[in-house]
Amino acid sequence: MNAIRTVGIICKAGKPEAAEVLKDLLPWLRQRGCDVVIDVETADVLNVDGKPRAEIPSVADVIVVLGGDGTMLGVARLIADRGVPILGVNLGGLGFITEVGLEDLRAVMGEVLEGKCPVEERMVLAAVVSRGGREIGAHAALNDVVINKAALARIIEMETSVNGVHVTTFRADGLIVSTPTGSTAYSLSAGGPIIYPTLNCIAITPICPHSLSNRPLVLPDDSVIRVILRSRSEGVYLTHDGQVGFSLLKDDIVEIRKAAYTTKLLLPCQRSYFQTIRAKLKWSGRVEQGGVQ
Amino acid sequence: MNAIRTVGIICKAGKPEAAEVLKDLLPWLRQRGCDVVIDVETADVLNVDGKPRAEIPSVADVIVVLGGDGTMLGVARLIADRGVPILGVNLGGLGFITEVGLEDLRAVMGEVLEGKCPVEERMVLAAVVSRGGREIGAHAALNDVVINKAALARIIEMETSVNGVHVTTFRADGLIVSTPTGSTAYSLSAGGPIIYPTLNCIAITPICPHSLSNRPLVLPDDSVIRVILRSRSEGVYLTHDGQVGFSLLKDDIVEIRKAAYTTKLLLPCQRSYFQTIRAKLKWSGRVEQGGVQ
Amino acid sequence: MNAIRTVGIICKAGKPEAAEVLKDLLPWLRQRGCDVVIDVETADVLNVDGKPRAEIPSVADVIVVLGGDGTMLGVARLIADRGVPILGVNLGGLGFITEVGLEDLRAVMGEVLEGKCPVEERMVLAAVVSRGGREIGAHAALNDVVINKAALARIIEMETSVNGVHVTTFRADGLIVSTPTGSTAYSLSAGGPIIYPTLNCIAITPICPHSLSNRPLVLPDDSVIRVILRSRSEGVYLTHDGQVGFSLLKDDIVEIRKAAYTTKLLLPCQRSYFQTIRAKLKWSGRVEQGGVQ
Amino acid sequence: MNAIRTVGIICKAGKPEAAEVLKDLLPWLRQRGCDVVIDVETADVLNVDGKPRAEIPSVADVIVVLGGDGTMLGVARLIADRGVPILGVNLGGLGFITEVGLEDLRAVMGEVLEGKCPVEERMVLAAVVSRGGREIGAHAALNDVVINKAALARIIEMETSVNGVHVTTFRADGLIVSTPTGSTAYSLSAGGPIIYPTLNCIAITPICPHSLSNRPLVLPDDSVIRVILRSRSEGVYLTHDGQVGFSLLKDDIVEIRKAAYTTKLLLPCQRSYFQTIRAKLKWSGRVEQGGVQ
Repeated sequence: MNAIRTVGIICKAGKPEAAEVLKDLLPWLRQRGCDVVIDVETADVLNVDGKPRAEIPSVADVIVVLGGDGTMLGVARLIADRGVPILGVNLGGLGFITEVGLEDLRAVMGEVLEGKCPVEERMVLAAVVSRGGREIGAHAALNDVVINKAALARIIEMETSVNGVHVTTFRADGLIVSTPTGSTAYSLSAGGPIIYPTLNCIAITPICPHSLSNRPLVLPDDSVIRVILRSRSEGVYLTHDGQVGFSLLKDDIVEIRKAAYTTKLLLPCQRSYFQTIRAKLKWSGRVEQGGVQ
Repeated sequence: MNAIRTVGIICKAGKPEAAEVLKDLLPWLRQRGCDVVIDVETADVLNVDGKPRAEIPSVADVIVVLGGDGTMLGVARLIADRGVPILGVNLGGLGFITEVGLEDLRAVMGEVLEGKCPVEERMVLAAVVSRGGREIGAHAALNDVVINKAALARIIEMETSVNGVHVTTFRADGLIVSTPTGSTAYSLSAGGPIIYPTLNCIAITPICPHSLSNRPLVLPDDSVIRVILRSRSEGVYLTHDGQVGFSLLKDDIVEIRKAAYTTKLLLPCQRSYFQTIRAKLKWSGRVEQGGVQ
Repeated sequence: MNAIRTVGIICKAGKPEAAEVLKDLLPWLRQRGCDVVIDVETADVLNVDGKPRAEIPSVADVIVVLGGDGTMLGVARLIADRGVPILGVNLGGLGFITEVGLEDLRAVMGEVLEGKCPVEERMVLAAVVSRGGREIGAHAALNDVVINKAALARIIEMETSVNGVHVTTFRADGLIVSTPTGSTAYSLSAGGPIIYPTLNCIAITPICPHSLSNRPLVLPDDSVIRVILRSRSEGVYLTHDGQVGFSLLKDDIVEIRKAAYTTKLLLPCQRSYFQTIRAKLKWSGRVEQGGVQ
Repeated sequence: MNAIRTVGIICKAGKPEAAEVLKDLLPWLRQRGCDVVIDVETADVLNVDGKPRAEIPSVADVIVVLGGDGTMLGVARLIADRGVPILGVNLGGLGFITEVGLEDLRAVMGEVLEGKCPVEERMVLAAVVSRGGREIGAHAALNDVVINKAALARIIEMETSVNGVHVTTFRADGLIVSTPTGSTAYSLSAGGPIIYPTLNCIAITPICPHSLSNRPLVLPDDSVIRVILRSRSEGVYLTHDGQVGFSLLKDDIVEIRKAAYTTKLLLPCQRSYFQTIRAKLKWSGRVEQGGVQ
């Protein structure tokens, strides 16, 4: 990581407590010779100058995100292939990718400015939608690309291949293609495994599959996954990181592969991945069961 | 079952092969002294008089359905509490509640007319939706009542009680409340158990629950299940038997209980329930697994 | 419940804290005109006269169990068809069938002596093993009857029928046949549903089935389940309530049905079934997932 | 692969049909200038000279296995780190790692001798057991290393760490540590995902976990997995590839990591991995569900 001149700051919208944090953090950063660029909504609360969120990645050497995992996912999409590292700071509960609590923020920022904070490169998925031979949409996701039917739509059929080889035609409510980072998000709810975040792989998990034998699949990260929507159902959508919807029609082709770039997370390693898992998924505790003494 | 004077016939829409079957069946029924009432779409194909589907249950002593399980579910809703027994005849694949193949149709109809065909009473669910203290909708279902979010909606929170006792607040994509008949439909896709169709119970299965510990629940059939939609999410729908949608708002209350009436299925017992399960769910076969000789 | 003259007391072995509890409870019970019969191990600790555990059910009008769910299961087997109601008192953690905490013991005992404490009748399973046409063993279980292979044994084949109708041949590590009471015990670990304890049903859950499509089955309580061990594997055992093993050979037949008697649990209803479920299965809490804000 | 001088042949024990195959294959191989070394049991059937199985890997340049996946696993253990490639030939059903049918045997052997048959290197697991600070056992596995309790043993506690970092203490019937090759074997029965065989990873799947939140974990292949048996239970065993048992005691440490060598499979690629999956797991077919038209 190069020397840090400009620190970008993006806060979760509608969180006045973030402004409180900045009252302390901004002078501290400036004392250390850093320029600070704040998202305009938060800047307004503080009565200082700000920049639109979307412009911050092109001027910042590092971005501090105050919010939860959802805010992080949004910032990762803004950064796209610019390679700016992100530090996730929790305003409330613990996140999978927002590790730092407010109490540790200064100490961690010190490490970041000195270049001592480790950076973890996380795989990003790139999805391209084609219709009638023409590319009509391109999306990136740090967690997952999901094809999902609306509440009232019928079951959908998704003909799926990997690197040109037919896998199966999933008949299901939908399909989740996830990164290891996303394995603890929607994929987990649909029955997917927990995948260590630095493993080089892509997971496919069907949502409510209508075949009892359809299980989650874990594939190498050089897999090109091609899904053709084979059913006429209306109300089928592509979402990425649960944020943006794109309406799919019959015979649309969704091609998903590893993006050429990664998202760079600053992880001060106060906590192991398994500690986060235990805390978030209530893993640590015993479940006492009836009759098992 | 009383003596059968009038046989109603309802065919799956857009199935000309049904008309072929009727060319033989109608004279055969009339020879045996039965009046026959045919749904108007099918009657048109045959150039005979018909009645609108919705009127058939009030004039028929028994209804023969030519179609699949979905057509059966629709007819069961039309019949509602009128108690007319239904015979399901398959036009193609095997169904869970359409047992009779075309090759056996005459023999089975003979048994039906002689009052020898056993009738199985299947539980029906009644769902009432209330908003701001006022009842705004009432629905019945032979398979399931489902609360489900749209593809783009956020996870929903459903505060759930049984007979006035708090169960849990499900955070999930949705919730399936199913009869034993419906246990092999959507509930099975979402991870629910297979429930013998005559067991007196109601099953609750969360869809993609965001807690790893939420499991399907099987409750006595006198349970009154009350679900309050606690999240602000738009695009949440109530469906019954997958057919009709009703848009739910925050704080809407859905109360689900056993209906006062049952659906009466004519089941000639050519096949056991477990045979159907094995055939439909590909249960019979062995799966040979790697390394397990 | 008839008037209570004699209170039996059975404590979990090796729990000196139980004796402490009795120092208070015994005089209190005698003041109220009750005879008290204590299991001999606990009586020895208190330097009073006791009776062997196995003799207590034939002299007591009610039995108080100090221990956990495992101790309760053992006492239920001792009582068998004698119909003596049991009150489960927790010495430590909460149990599914040991509801009363020490702090509430006196108040609850007061209700029990006055005949005000509700009794819940729980289904018991009766299993009979036959070999070469001869009955060679009979067992009862409040939770479950389990056929299970040893760690080193090969996968076993269990040909299964219900009321004489073939279900399937399970190829699995084993098979759990459970009561609703047992649904939260071993069956739950193997993927079974949670069944309300008073529902009249029997659940069958395969253990590590080698067919992906084998799901838990919930059957009416008048089902006679017959399992024939079809594989030659050594090291296959029948256990009931996880306590006693019986070695099964190829072609042995295990027939499981509802016992003619029930186990009577005194349930003072301080807590709902769902509260117990939430507490024991860590159901109540939210799991915050990555990227789901 | 070097030029092939000596072809080893190992057949599944007790399969006279293998000898039939060899009557054709042996002269064909000798015509092409190859020495052939046959396992002694099969050689006896043919009245020719043979060698003990265990000696074949040290003299053969390639080994042809006639049998199923279980025979392949045994041969892989015999070869250990000698790097001799194996060709799996099916005598009956299809296997995950025995791809070649008898009808293709000659054509494939031709490719093998010409060095044209692709070789896939599969990860092997190495497990070391320590007791009281001393190493007491070392095992290798192509599919899985399993800690499993006996049918009558109580639930076991397995304190688990990865690269020195605590993961969780699994309370379960057992734990499966599997390679991608083994993901379609026992791990799948216990709820694990299907992992593409060339992915560099190790999967951990608990068997009947007593916490509802314990899910399969997929880890990078440089993970050192350490499991300490924390419970006093008797009848706990370590097995590798389901074949050999090793009795574990309380506080025994099992350390599992990627072996320094791989198993080399000759895969003539007549069939894609997904074709095998579909055929073996009955994946291809539709399951028609009740009420889902």
